Amino acid sequence: MSRVTIAPEEDRLNAQIAFTVEIDKLKRVIRRNLLMDGSRRENTAEHSWYVGLLAMVLGEHAPTGTDIQRVVSMLLVHDLVEIDAGDTFVYDAEAVLAQAAAEQTAADRIFSLLPGEQGAEMRALWEEFEARQTPEARFAKALDRFAPILANHHTEGGTWGLFKVKASQVREKVQIIEEGSPSLGAYARELVDLSIARGHLSE
Amino acid sequence: MSRVTIAPEEDRLNAQIAFTVEIDKLKRVIRRNLLMDGSRRENTAEHSWYVGLLAMVLGEHAPTGTDIQRVVSMLLVHDLVEIDAGDTFVYDAEAVLAQAAAEQTAADRIFSLLPGEQGAEMRALWEEFEARQTPEARFAKALDRFAPILANHHTEGGTWGLFKVKASQVREKVQIIEEGSPSLGAYARELVDLSIARGHLSE
Repeated sequence: MSRVTIAPEEDRLNAQIAFTVEIDKLKRVIRRNLLMDGSRRENTAEHSWYVGLLAMVLGEHAPTGTDIQRVVSMLLVHDLVEIDAGDTFVYDAEAVLAQAAAEQTAADRIFSLLPGEQGAEMRALWEEFEARQTPEARFAKALDRFAPILANHHTEGGTWGLFKVKASQVREKVQIIEEGSPSLGAYARELVDLSIARGHLSE
Repeated sequence: MSRVTIAPEEDRLNAQIAFTVEIDKLKRVIRRNLLMDGSRRENTAEHSWYVGLLAMVLGEHAPTGTDIQRVVSMLLVHDLVEIDAGDTFVYDAEAVLAQAAAEQTAADRIFSLLPGEQGAEMRALWEEFEARQTPEARFAKALDRFAPILANHHTEGGTWGLFKVKASQVREKVQIIEEGSPSLGAYARELVDLSIARGHLSE
């Protein structure tokens, strides 16, 4: 696909606006997870706001030197590919595998709506998140895994019960949280134990 | 209200978690504005994500030297007070006046869930946004006003038609956009003119 990388100013703004119109669709992507009061499933746009704000609030639980502003930016874009690829339930292992290719195709289309270097920069943020090789990406992913555990804990098991998720599967996610933040990992582990004790999660 | 300002580590995390559980309620605050496809009204959480990402995408349209990361942070917290105070339609002048006191009371409660200095810092971000005295706040407010104009333009007038808003009222909002970003202000003015030409907004 040919693309003008140094566009005149007006074309540049038009491309940015086209992108902002497109990403509004993320508000219509529905995740498995429930709101904290159990009233409905959440959409990916509000989830993205939530974890972005979590990064601001819980930033001190990331390893020293983690660039929290970068974590916030990463979390605001981390699920944009779901506009095309949809949400995948983290406990559906088969779907998670198939998802990777669909997400790359989605990223090709969505980020290329932006002016060349800006689209590349934003895509790089998403790739960094997915690769989980930097402290920023590990902390961002930790928060992304932490939020559903917190919500399930507050909704008598929430999606764990609905989709017959076992404690051993949840503990794999806790491991990911620990890798991004030892203190949040420990906290999540406590929540899991409490949920088991209350009969909201099965071993 | 007495508060422990230097809490032990565990109390500190517990306070932060209590805050993150509380703010989930923002997903249930419904605004007047419609999604870009007109399918439903948007909630304040997804709106907050949207304008935060707008700041990342359109940051170059802020005056040189504007701290865009601060704008993003400001936009993620700018509507938290709506958890208690609800959303006010910007074209309802009477409600906007009554809202100020309700929002201060809301801020007192919500931000004080956090450890002392962290709550104060986050509240300061919100106060800065409301006061619109810094380039960051002016740009943040500009984006907050820009998003509904963009959505209305894409939904054949959207809330303008539904609530009988006149072009003169919308132009007052365009003025606020111009004060935060001349180029986005000019763009918004074009959208307004186009909407009038198409019969989606009345003089």
